[in-house]
Amino acid sequence: MLVNGLPQKTINLDDRGLAYGDGVFETVRLVGSRPVFLSEHLQRLRKGCEKLGLNCDFAKLENEISSLQARFTDYAILKILISRGAGGRGYRPASEMSATRILTLHPLPELPQLQAGEGVRVFVCEYRLSQQAELAGIKHLNRLDQVMASREWPEPGMFEGLMRDQQGYIIEGTRSNLFYAQGGSLYTPALKNCGVAGIFRDLLLQSGEFDISVIENVSLQALLQADELFLCNSVTGVWPVSSLENAGQTHHYATGSFATEAMSLFGKALHADNAD
Amino acid sequence: MLVNGLPQKTINLDDRGLAYGDGVFETVRLVGSRPVFLSEHLQRLRKGCEKLGLNCDFAKLENEISSLQARFTDYAILKILISRGAGGRGYRPASEMSATRILTLHPLPELPQLQAGEGVRVFVCEYRLSQQAELAGIKHLNRLDQVMASREWPEPGMFEGLMRDQQGYIIEGTRSNLFYAQGGSLYTPALKNCGVAGIFRDLLLQSGEFDISVIENVSLQALLQADELFLCNSVTGVWPVSSLENAGQTHHYATGSFATEAMSLFGKALHADNAD
Repeated sequence: MLVNGLPQKTINLDDRGLAYGDGVFETVRLVGSRPVFLSEHLQRLRKGCEKLGLNCDFAKLENEISSLQARFTDYAILKILISRGAGGRGYRPASEMSATRILTLHPLPELPQLQAGEGVRVFVCEYRLSQQAELAGIKHLNRLDQVMASREWPEPGMFEGLMRDQQGYIIEGTRSNLFYAQGGSLYTPALKNCGVAGIFRDLLLQSGEFDISVIENVSLQALLQADELFLCNSVTGVWPVSSLENAGQTHHYATGSFATEAMSLFGKALHADNAD
Repeated sequence: MLVNGLPQKTINLDDRGLAYGDGVFETVRLVGSRPVFLSEHLQRLRKGCEKLGLNCDFAKLENEISSLQARFTDYAILKILISRGAGGRGYRPASEMSATRILTLHPLPELPQLQAGEGVRVFVCEYRLSQQAELAGIKHLNRLDQVMASREWPEPGMFEGLMRDQQGYIIEGTRSNLFYAQGGSLYTPALKNCGVAGIFRDLLLQSGEFDISVIENVSLQALLQADELFLCNSVTGVWPVSSLENAGQTHHYATGSFATEAMSLFGKALHADNAD
């Protein structure tokens, strides 16, 4: 654990990350000593810092990440948390503040072991995402929406909860982005007023391997009519959905070719030797 | 500074208050050794803990507050921060977690010294409050809305920024609640989809001294047509508004009888000897 480059397990009580969730974060998958999609994570972090006006020293941050590299092999996740720092007059930040850089290492969470063609179970959360176009896409520290939705988990065997926006349209999972296919085309919900723009979601959108349409106002009905559904996350990968449970009804899906191809793309990225 | 009853200036990096803003807080005004409106603050804290499902030991919290009392006279503000604690599987909290209790003491912020009848300047923030009915009213730690709006401050002499909801209706200040009077009646915006239900706002609503209507969809136009405007906050009190600046236009108000009466009520509460 490093705080501003120093080994530290704690942070000052006056840090604005704790006081107001005034910051951004990334969780980066480690494979051996390689942080997967690191440049993409750093790019999203920069974008978040810019949006919030955080004064983060990225040169120092990248040095600190490098200095931890020898320890990466013992872990699976590097978490990077950037808070605005300490101080200011209440909510109003001081202009000269410099951001706090926090690096921590973590094991991979327990994940289901799926056989080929198998998928995961998802449910629809009652709790809805806050509407806030200004912060949509950014992985900031105001995550009560995801925490509240996660409290609805009906049983440990459930893999993910799908979240809706204030109007009731489907947006994403609590910790993953959602794709759905119909009639040979692939779709993903737009993240205009809420949602986190996932690293692997962006990579799929930009990959050229798929022709993906970004859709506003995705209804639950659209998902029920889909041929296949899958979730993705830059740390844990691609997960075909086998069942969607909502209001006592269970809708089943087979693992489709899009999910299979996306899984293969993630596998290649995970095992490629393209350290950046 | 006390963390779970122990003198401590830091908190563990894995606390969910830092990770997700997973908690609630209160700032309590101290007058001599007396915390003003303490029972009301604790009541809102309980409500917030209940809503978020935080497992906070209020008996311990109240003991810890008492144990700090000898030091109250050197400060003006007691901040109580309750986070869900450390741990859980990502966003999903572990069921057996116990909340972290953080108590810190602070001086009063610099406040303008007004002559009788004078008021403060306010402006209208471009940044709007997130729409989230589930969390409306609660003083939780997801405060990026207030931080982002506070970054718009045009000059140090400005006292407060008024915030609108996603539909553009006026809700509150970044750190205060808003009241407006017209034709001898007093009004305050409803906090249905956003906003913080302030302690002194609640006291005014319940006081019986005023007949206050709680209004949805308060337009900027309604404020421009008002006879008087005032802000309140349980720590700093009641502030008549002398000017509202928006889009290059300045609208002036005289300090009215409602603001004067509310100021007097606050003054009485501050100096009453009704320690609870």
